[in-house]
Amino acid sequence: MPNIANDPTRKSWINVPENSDFPIQNIPFGVFLTKEDVITIGTRIGDSAIDMGALQQLGYFEGIDLTDDMFMQDTLNDFISDGKKTWRLVRNRLAELFDINNPKLRDNKDHCEVVIFDLADIEMLLPVQIGDYTDFYSSKEHATNVGKMFRDPENALLPNWLHIPVGYHGRSSTIVPSGIPVHRPMGQTLPNGENSPVFGPSRLVDFELETAFITTDANVMGENIPVNEAEDYIFGMVLLNDWSARDMQKWEYVPLGPFLAKNFASSISPWIVTMDALEPFRVKGPKQEPTPLPYLQQKGKHAYDINLEVYIEPENAEATLVSKSNFKHMYWSMSQQLTHHTSNGCRVNSGDMMGSGTISGPTEDSYGSMLELTWGGKNPIKMNDGSERKFINDNDTVIMKGFCQNSSLRIGFGEVSSKLLPTFVRK
Amino acid sequence: MPNIANDPTRKSWINVPENSDFPIQNIPFGVFLTKEDVITIGTRIGDSAIDMGALQQLGYFEGIDLTDDMFMQDTLNDFISDGKKTWRLVRNRLAELFDINNPKLRDNKDHCEVVIFDLADIEMLLPVQIGDYTDFYSSKEHATNVGKMFRDPENALLPNWLHIPVGYHGRSSTIVPSGIPVHRPMGQTLPNGENSPVFGPSRLVDFELETAFITTDANVMGENIPVNEAEDYIFGMVLLNDWSARDMQKWEYVPLGPFLAKNFASSISPWIVTMDALEPFRVKGPKQEPTPLPYLQQKGKHAYDINLEVYIEPENAEATLVSKSNFKHMYWSMSQQLTHHTSNGCRVNSGDMMGSGTISGPTEDSYGSMLELTWGGKNPIKMNDGSERKFINDNDTVIMKGFCQNSSLRIGFGEVSSKLLPTFVRK
Repeated sequence: MPNIANDPTRKSWINVPENSDFPIQNIPFGVFLTKEDVITIGTRIGDSAIDMGALQQLGYFEGIDLTDDMFMQDTLNDFISDGKKTWRLVRNRLAELFDINNPKLRDNKDHCEVVIFDLADIEMLLPVQIGDYTDFYSSKEHATNVGKMFRDPENALLPNWLHIPVGYHGRSSTIVPSGIPVHRPMGQTLPNGENSPVFGPSRLVDFELETAFITTDANVMGENIPVNEAEDYIFGMVLLNDWSARDMQKWEYVPLGPFLAKNFASSISPWIVTMDALEPFRVKGPKQEPTPLPYLQQKGKHAYDINLEVYIEPENAEATLVSKSNFKHMYWSMSQQLTHHTSNGCRVNSGDMMGSGTISGPTEDSYGSMLELTWGGKNPIKMNDGSERKFINDNDTVIMKGFCQNSSLRIGFGEVSSKLLPTFVRK
Repeated sequence: MPNIANDPTRKSWINVPENSDFPIQNIPFGVFLTKEDVITIGTRIGDSAIDMGALQQLGYFEGIDLTDDMFMQDTLNDFISDGKKTWRLVRNRLAELFDINNPKLRDNKDHCEVVIFDLADIEMLLPVQIGDYTDFYSSKEHATNVGKMFRDPENALLPNWLHIPVGYHGRSSTIVPSGIPVHRPMGQTLPNGENSPVFGPSRLVDFELETAFITTDANVMGENIPVNEAEDYIFGMVLLNDWSARDMQKWEYVPLGPFLAKNFASSISPWIVTMDALEPFRVKGPKQEPTPLPYLQQKGKHAYDINLEVYIEPENAEATLVSKSNFKHMYWSMSQQLTHHTSNGCRVNSGDMMGSGTISGPTEDSYGSMLELTWGGKNPIKMNDGSERKFINDNDTVIMKGFCQNSSLRIGFGEVSSKLLPTFVRK
C-alpha cells in the first residue's frame, strides 16, 4: 500500500508554523486529556491537536477495519496491535482529511470545533501502556567514553560489545511524559577513599540523550524475529531522557547492572513519530567491524538521520544548548536490537519500549550525557547565565529536541522537557 | 482486625487430604479458567478450586466493600489494590463460609455446584498482570558460591553486597504459570579459549530456586517506603523458577547485567499465598554484619521458615529430589528489599513482582541451582533412573515445591512445574 501521507508537496488547511516539527507529513500519534476531562487518542498538525476519537465517532475513518472505540482509549496499545497496514491506512486517511484541497472536514465548522484543539488546552499523557522497557547501549562513542573513564582507557570497549547489541531491562512504572517533573533521588553511594557507603541525595544527577522505539506484538514465546522482518514490528519512535544518578550507579552496578541509579525516572516525548514518517530520512549506519554473526547481518539503510539537541534551562534563566548529536551515529540498528532481543524467544508485546542507549557523537560537543560532556565533572560547562554545570542542579529543566530535515521536509519529535526538583519530602 | 482465618483448630466441610498444602488456614488467591471458558478469581481448599466470582454474584461477600465485579476479573490487581484490610476481610469471610460448622453454603447443593470445581477441571492462569518484575540476589550463600566460581575465591562477595539488597530488573512478558513448557533458548556464547562468539542453542540451561512476592500500590513517584511500613505493601508470595542459560549469561552480563540469559522464561506457582497465612512461620533472619545503613535497619522477625525442594523429572522416568533449601536463609528480608527498591522514589504498583534471588542454603545439598549443585558441571548429579545431570536436559521437567510446617499446621504453595522443550522450531 503506498505511503501517500508522505507526499512532500501536500499542504494542510490547518496552519503549520515555519520550521514546525509537525507538518501534515508527520502525523504522529499520542494520547491527550482535554479540559472536559476526556482522554482520547489523537494526532498533531502544526500547533493543533486532533481528537481521533471524535473523528471516529463522526465517521471519518469509515472503510477502515477498526473496532468501534479504537481511538476512544487511554493508550495506543490496541491500535498498535492492529499492525502496519492499519497504521498506514489511518495515517493516509488523516493526510487526505487535512489536505488543503479537501473541504469535507475543513468546511464543517461544527465538526472542526469538536475535533481540533489548541495545544494549550490539552495535556499530553503517556501514549502507551509500556509492558516492558528495555534499554540498549548501542552508541560506540558512548560505550568507549564510559569505558575510558571507568575501566581501561586502552581497552575501553568490553569484548562482547562489538558482537552483541548490549541491553538490559529498565523499569516501566517510572516512565513519564514530557512536562512531569522528577525528584532528585536518594541513594547509597561510596564516598571516595571510604569503605562504607552513605545514604543521601545523589550528588551526580545526569541526563542521557536517547531515542526509543515502540513495538507491536512481535512473536509468541520461543519464537525469534529475523533481522529482515524486524522493522515490520516497530511502530514509531520517541525522544527519551534516561535520568541517571552517577554516584549511585558506580556503587551498585556490579555485577547485575544499574538499578536504582536509573529507575527513579525516565522521561519521553509524548508524540510517537511513525517509522513511515521517518522513511525519507533513512541512511546507512556505521560500518560494523567485525562482521556480526549471521542472525544480525543486514544490508541497506537501517539508520536514521535525526538531529538531536540537549538544552539545560536553569530556573529563571534562558536555556543553554549543551549537546548536538545525531541518531545516525548508532552502531547497532533498531532492527538488530529487536532481533537480538527476540533471538532467545523473548516475547515482545504491543507497547513495549526499547531505548537506544545514550547517543553520543564523535566530537566532544556531541556527547549525550553530562558525564561525558564534562568528562566526569572535570570540565564544567559554561551556561549562558554565567553559571557552570558539572551535572544537573535542582530546578534545572533538561530539554531534548529531535528533528529530521532535508531540502523539502522537516519531521520532528517536538521535545521532552523535565525539571529536576529537589529530593521528595513526605507530607 | 483479627486474622481469624488463621485459627489452627478450624476444619472445613471441603475434604482436605493429609499433608495438603491447602488446608482452610491457607486460603490463597489465584485466577483460573473453567471448562466453560469462564475466567474467574478463586481460592483453593484441599483439591477443590472455589470460584470467588460466583460466590460474589451469589451474595456471599455482602457487607464487604468491594466493587461489583471484583472477583469476575482475569487478574487480582484490583483486589490487591484494595489493600490489606480488604484482603483480610475476604480471607476471614472465606474461612467462615467453608468452616465445617457453617451450613450456609455447605447445605446449598445448587450453589456448591456452581462454586466448587475439581482441580482437574480448571486451568490455572497467571494470577496478576505483572507491571514490573524485579529480581533480587539476596542469598549470601548463593552470591558467595557464584563469586567463588566466577570471580575471586578469596573475595567472593562483592564490596556492595553486604550493604545493598542487590537487585535488577527482569522481563514481565515471559513470566508464565506452572505447567507451561519452556523452550531451550538460542543465544550467543563464547567457546572456551576463543575470541569470537557463536550462536546456537544454550548448552547450560539451569533453574534458579526462588520465591517472589507480589506488591500492592506502595507509593507515588519520589516517595520512599520506610522499612517498618514495608510489610503492609506485600500481598503474598509464590514460588519462582528463574530459568537461566549460564553460557549466554557469562558472555553477555558485563557490564549491564544478565539479559537474554534470563528473559526467555520465568515460571511461577499459580496460587498467591498471603502474608497473613504465612504469619505463624515468621522467624528471625540471619545476623546482618556489618549493620545495614539506618534506612534498612529493622528489629524482630522478618524471615519466614519455608521449606523448599527441587525435583528433576526426566521424560518417562520418576523425579529425583536434587535440592532441599529454606527461605529462612535469605540474608535480606522482603521488607528490606522493598524499602531499598523505593528508597530512590521508584514507584511500586499493584501486581509488581519481586524475586528473592536463588535461595541456597549452607550445605551442598541445599544449593538453589545446578550451577552450584554440580559446581559448574564438575560434579554431576546422579538421578534415580541412573542418568546424570550437569544442567537441565531437553524434556526434563523441573518441579519446585514449598511449604511451611509446624506441629499443628502446614501451609504450602503447591508447586511450580515446567518442562524444558527443545529449541523452538518455526512452523
